[in-house]
Amino acid sequence: MAEVAIVMGSISDWTTMVFTANILDELKITYDKKVISAHRMPAEMSEFAMSAEENGYKVIIAGAGGAAHLPGMIASSTSLPVVGVPVQSHALSGMDSLLSIVQMPAGTPVATMAIGKAGATNAGIFAAKICGLYNSKINDALKVYQLQIRQKSLESSDLLD
Amino acid sequence: MAEVAIVMGSISDWTTMVFTANILDELKITYDKKVISAHRMPAEMSEFAMSAEENGYKVIIAGAGGAAHLPGMIASSTSLPVVGVPVQSHALSGMDSLLSIVQMPAGTPVATMAIGKAGATNAGIFAAKICGLYNSKINDALKVYQLQIRQKSLESSDLLD
Amino acid sequence: MAEVAIVMGSISDWTTMVFTANILDELKITYDKKVISAHRMPAEMSEFAMSAEENGYKVIIAGAGGAAHLPGMIASSTSLPVVGVPVQSHALSGMDSLLSIVQMPAGTPVATMAIGKAGATNAGIFAAKICGLYNSKINDALKVYQLQIRQKSLESSDLLD
Amino acid sequence: MAEVAIVMGSISDWTTMVFTANILDELKITYDKKVISAHRMPAEMSEFAMSAEENGYKVIIAGAGGAAHLPGMIASSTSLPVVGVPVQSHALSGMDSLLSIVQMPAGTPVATMAIGKAGATNAGIFAAKICGLYNSKINDALKVYQLQIRQKSLESSDLLD
Amino acid sequence: MAEVAIVMGSISDWTTMVFTANILDELKITYDKKVISAHRMPAEMSEFAMSAEENGYKVIIAGAGGAAHLPGMIASSTSLPVVGVPVQSHALSGMDSLLSIVQMPAGTPVATMAIGKAGATNAGIFAAKICGLYNSKINDALKVYQLQIRQKSLESSDLLD
Amino acid sequence: MAEVAIVMGSISDWTTMVFTANILDELKITYDKKVISAHRMPAEMSEFAMSAEENGYKVIIAGAGGAAHLPGMIASSTSLPVVGVPVQSHALSGMDSLLSIVQMPAGTPVATMAIGKAGATNAGIFAAKICGLYNSKINDALKVYQLQIRQKSLESSDLLD
Amino acid sequence: MAEVAIVMGSISDWTTMVFTANILDELKITYDKKVISAHRMPAEMSEFAMSAEENGYKVIIAGAGGAAHLPGMIASSTSLPVVGVPVQSHALSGMDSLLSIVQMPAGTPVATMAIGKAGATNAGIFAAKICGLYNSKINDALKVYQLQIRQKSLESSDLLD
Amino acid sequence: MAEVAIVMGSISDWTTMVFTANILDELKITYDKKVISAHRMPAEMSEFAMSAEENGYKVIIAGAGGAAHLPGMIASSTSLPVVGVPVQSHALSGMDSLLSIVQMPAGTPVATMAIGKAGATNAGIFAAKICGLYNSKINDALKVYQLQIRQKSLESSDLLD
Repeated sequence: MAEVAIVMGSISDWTTMVFTANILDELKITYDKKVISAHRMPAEMSEFAMSAEENGYKVIIAGAGGAAHLPGMIASSTSLPVVGVPVQSHALSGMDSLLSIVQMPAGTPVATMAIGKAGATNAGIFAAKICGLYNSKINDALKVYQLQIRQKSLESSDLLD
Repeated sequence: MAEVAIVMGSISDWTTMVFTANILDELKITYDKKVISAHRMPAEMSEFAMSAEENGYKVIIAGAGGAAHLPGMIASSTSLPVVGVPVQSHALSGMDSLLSIVQMPAGTPVATMAIGKAGATNAGIFAAKICGLYNSKINDALKVYQLQIRQKSLESSDLLD
Repeated sequence: MAEVAIVMGSISDWTTMVFTANILDELKITYDKKVISAHRMPAEMSEFAMSAEENGYKVIIAGAGGAAHLPGMIASSTSLPVVGVPVQSHALSGMDSLLSIVQMPAGTPVATMAIGKAGATNAGIFAAKICGLYNSKINDALKVYQLQIRQKSLESSDLLD
Repeated sequence: MAEVAIVMGSISDWTTMVFTANILDELKITYDKKVISAHRMPAEMSEFAMSAEENGYKVIIAGAGGAAHLPGMIASSTSLPVVGVPVQSHALSGMDSLLSIVQMPAGTPVATMAIGKAGATNAGIFAAKICGLYNSKINDALKVYQLQIRQKSLESSDLLD
Repeated sequence: MAEVAIVMGSISDWTTMVFTANILDELKITYDKKVISAHRMPAEMSEFAMSAEENGYKVIIAGAGGAAHLPGMIASSTSLPVVGVPVQSHALSGMDSLLSIVQMPAGTPVATMAIGKAGATNAGIFAAKICGLYNSKINDALKVYQLQIRQKSLESSDLLD
Repeated sequence: MAEVAIVMGSISDWTTMVFTANILDELKITYDKKVISAHRMPAEMSEFAMSAEENGYKVIIAGAGGAAHLPGMIASSTSLPVVGVPVQSHALSGMDSLLSIVQMPAGTPVATMAIGKAGATNAGIFAAKICGLYNSKINDALKVYQLQIRQKSLESSDLLD
Repeated sequence: MAEVAIVMGSISDWTTMVFTANILDELKITYDKKVISAHRMPAEMSEFAMSAEENGYKVIIAGAGGAAHLPGMIASSTSLPVVGVPVQSHALSGMDSLLSIVQMPAGTPVATMAIGKAGATNAGIFAAKICGLYNSKINDALKVYQLQIRQKSLESSDLLD
Repeated sequence: MAEVAIVMGSISDWTTMVFTANILDELKITYDKKVISAHRMPAEMSEFAMSAEENGYKVIIAGAGGAAHLPGMIASSTSLPVVGVPVQSHALSGMDSLLSIVQMPAGTPVATMAIGKAGATNAGIFAAKICGLYNSKINDALKVYQLQIRQKSLESSDLLD
C-alpha cells in the first residue's frame, strides 16, 4: 500500500511530475502514479478522491496545467492533504495553472508548490515532511537530504574560482 | 421546465449573477437558479451536471470566482453548452477567475464571458442567442434588444451637448 | 449550406484555426472558412456578419490575435452566437488577444475559448454542443467524442508503468 | 467645421473624455463630441469613420474601455490619424482597454495614450501637436502651454518648504 | 504544548491571520501565535525555526506580505511542514506576496495558500488535514466541518428564491 | 530635409525599427535615422529634441526597450508629435517598454504603437497619416496602401481552400 | 550643504516622499527637497543632475509615478548613486512606475525601492547605508534604528495575547 | 581585502552574475564571489551577512531567482548597502525574482536592479558609484566608463548608414 498518490491531468504532465517520483524514490517513500483527468474522467476522479483515504494514501500530489482543476477537485472529496503542482502551460507559462490551483475558496485548501519542475520536486519533499511527522525514518531521510543539498551548494561555490 | 440553469459557486456571487437573471427575464427565457459549490458540494454538482440534459435545460450558465472550477467541472459531465462568468474576486479583481474558467484543455469548452456584471448580462444574452437558433420568438426578442441598446446609445450622445 | 463559419483575422492564424476545422470534420459538422480582417477589410467583415444568419450559418467561430477585434465586431452585427479564439500573439503570448476578445461590454457577448490550439479545438466542440441541441446526430457524435477522450486518458495512464 | 472629433464608446466614458474637451478648449481647437458604440452602433461607427475626412476633421480622438474596439475600428475606415484613450475599466483598471487599443496589427495604427484622465488630456495635446504642424497659432498655443506647465511645476516646488 | 505555530511578519498581518486562529479553535487544534519578522528579527526567526520541531510543533503556518520571506526562511531551517499565507499587500494586492512565497527553489517547499483571508482559513484546515493523519479526533472534526460547509452551501441556495 | 526622424535607444533596436524605415520608403516619405541613447547620450538627445522643429522634421519616431525613456524625453523638449515604438525586451517581452512609453503624465503625450515589428510599421504609417493631412501625395499613397493590404487579405483567404 | 537631495516628479508625490524626509530627519542626515519634472522641466532636471556632485550631494533620491523617467534621467547625467522610488500610480498601482524605474539598460543603474511609502522610507535608509560607509555617526544611527525596529517587532508580538 | 562581495543563490546564477564581475574588473574594484543559498545554507548566509562589515566589504551584491530571498535576508543582518539582481527565472521570466527582491518592507532596503544581465552589470556600476564617493580613482574610472559608453553609442549610429 503506497503512502503517496501522484496524479496528473494528462500524460504530457509526466515530464514535470517525474521529478516528484524521483525525489520520493530518493527519500524511500512509496507511491502510485496515474493519469486522472478532471475534465475527461470526472467520475474516475471523484471515485479516486473519495476512496483515497481508505486505500491507505497519506498524501495526494496532483499536477495540472492551464485551468488546472484536478488538485482542487480532489481536495473537495477527501480529508487527506492535497499538494498541487502547477504545470508550466504553453501560452501563459503556468501563471494560469498557478492561480487556478492556489486561489481556492475557504474550506478546501490545496498546498500549492512552485510552477514546473522545482514545484514537482518540492511536492515530493513536502509529502515527506508530512509523512516524517509520524515516521522517523522518513524524517531522518529528509534531514540527510537537507544536509546533502547544503553540502552541494557549499561545494558549488568552489567552482567559481 | 426551464430553458436555462443559472448556477453559482456561492451565494455571494448572486450580486453578479442577478444580472443574468434580469436579462433572461427581459428576453422572456425561463430559468432556474441555484448555489452549487464545486468544492463544498462536489457530489451535488456532479449529479446536477449529469442530469441537466434530461432535465430539459438547453444552456447552463455558471458563475464563480477565484479558482473558479464550477463552470469547467459542469462542462466535463454534460454535452450541453456551458457559459462561464468570472466573478470579480477580492485580491486579484477576477483575473484568477477569468484564467481558471477560460484556459480549459481541448475537449471540454466553457464559453467564457467578461469579468463581473457585464459578463453576467452577456451570459444571458449568449444563452438567448443559442436558444434563438431554434426558437424564433427568442431570436426576435434578441433583435429588439439589440435595436434598443443601439437606440439608447444614440440618445445618450445627445446628453453630451 | 454550411452550419459553421470559421473566420480569422489573418492567414497566419490558420495554423491555430486548422484545429477548429479538424474537430468539426471529426464531428461531421459542415463549415466554411475565410480570412476576414477587421482592420484591413472592415466593409467585407460587416457584410459577412450582417448576412451570416440568412446565409444559414448557426455559429460563427472567429480567431484573432493582438488587438483581436474580429470576434467582437462580428458579434455586433449578428444575432448568431459568436465563439472567439484568442490566437497566441508574439510579444504577449495571447494575453492581449484574450482580453480584447473576452472583455466585451454588456449587450454583445463573445463566447471566449482558451488561448491557442486548445481553444481552437474547443471552439469546434462548443459549436457542436450548440448544434447538438437541435440535431441529435451531432449530439450523439459529441457523446462518442467525450467517451473517446475519456478512453484515451484512461489508456494513457498505463504508459506511466 | 470642427478640427477634431471626440468619440467615445459609452456616455460613461465622458467623465474621462471631458479632459480632452477641456484641453482643446484651452488650446482653442474646435471639436465635436459624440457617443459612438462600436458594438451597439456598428453601422453608425462605420459611417462616421468613412465620412470623417470629407467632413473636415483632421484628427479623431476615440476613448473606450474593456475590449475597447472603437479606436481601432475607426482607424480601419479612415486615413485620418486616430488617437486612442484607454478608459480605466472596473475589474482590470484599464489594462484590458490599453492592450485592446495599442496592440493593433501592422497596417492600422492607433496612437495610444495613457490610461484614464492623463491620457485624455494628452490626446488633446497630441491632436494640437498634429494641427500645429500646419497652423502656427495652435503651435504657438502649445508652446505657451508647455511654458505654463513648466512654470507651475517650478512654483509647486516652493510649496515643499 | 501546541500542535501548530502561527507566525506572521508584522502585527498588521493579524487581521488576516486571525482567520487561521479561528478555524483552529473551531477544529480544536492547539496553537501558539507570534510576530516574527524575517527582516527585523532574523536571529529570532532562525532560532524559532531551528527549535520548532523539538518544541513539539507539528505544523508551522506563516503569513507575510510583499517580499514575503518569512515562510520560505522558516522552511529552510526545519524539517516540519511549513504552510504559507500570502497577505494582501497594498500596491500589488498580494501578487508580490504570492510569488515570493510560492516560487521556492527545489529543496525547500512552502505549502502556499490563497491570498488573504480565504488562504488564512485554509492554512488552518490544511494543518488539520496533516494532524488528522495521526489523530483521529482531528480527522473526525474535519469531516464534520466539511459536512457543515456543504450544508451551509445547500441551504444558501434556498435564499435565492 | 527629411520629414521624419527615426531615432532609437540602441543599435540593437534597428532590427525592429527597420520596419519603420521600410514602410516610409514604400510611402515615399523622407527620413533620417540615428541612435540616440537617453541614458548614454542625454545631452545629444536634448540637443536633438530641441532643434528638431527648426531642422524641418514633422514627426519624430522613437523606438526603445526596457525602461524606455527616449520617446518621452524627446517629447518633453519639442512641440512636434512624437510616436513611440516599444521594442520587445528580453525578460518581460516588451511589457516594460510599453508601460514606460505609454503611461506619460498629462502634458507630454507620446503616441504609442504596438510592441515590436507591427508597432514599428505602424509608426511609419501613423507618421504618413499626419503628413498626409497637408500633403495630398502622401495621403494618396496611404489610401493606395490601405487598398493593397485589403487586397492581400482578400487574396490570402483563397489560400485556405 | 545637504548630503541627500530628494527630488520628485510632481508635488503630488510628496505624500509618498515625505516618508523619505522623515527617516532622514530621524537618522540626522541633511537633505534638500525639490519638485523637478522630467517632462515639464527637462532643462532644469539636466542642470540639477549635472551639478549635483559639485553641489556636494552624496546621494540623490528620486520619486516618480507612471512612466517614471525622473530617476533614470538623473542617473544618466551624474556619477552619484541615484535611488528610485516608484510612486503608486492611479490605474496600475505603481507597476508601471516600478518597471519604468527598475528596467534600466546596462550602464545607468537606478537603485530601485518598493512601490509607495515603504519604498520611500527605505530610500532614506539606503542613503544612510551609503553615507554610513564614510561617516561613523550615521552608521551608528542606522544600527540603533535597526535595533529599534527589532524591538518594536518583538513587542508587537505581545499584543497578540 | 575586497571592496565588494558578489553572492548568488545558486551556481546556475553565475551566467548572470559574471556580468557583475566583468564590470568590476573593468572599473578596477576588488571583489569576492560565492554561492550562498538562503534556503540551503541559511546558517552560512546569516554568518556571512553578520560579519560582512568587519570583513571590510563596502557593498554586497546578491543575485537570485524565483522566490529570491537572498538579497533581502542579507540586508536584514548588516548595515552595509545591499544591491539585488533579479535573475531571469524559467517560468515567469524574472517577474517573480523582481517582486521578491524589490518589495521589501520599510526598514530593510535592497537596491534592486533590472532583471538579468543588464541588472548584473548595473549592480557593479552602482557599487562603483558608492565606492566612488570616498575613492576618487573609482569615481574617475566611472566617468571614463560613462564617456566610453556614450562614445560607443555615438559611433553605433554610423552603422545605420
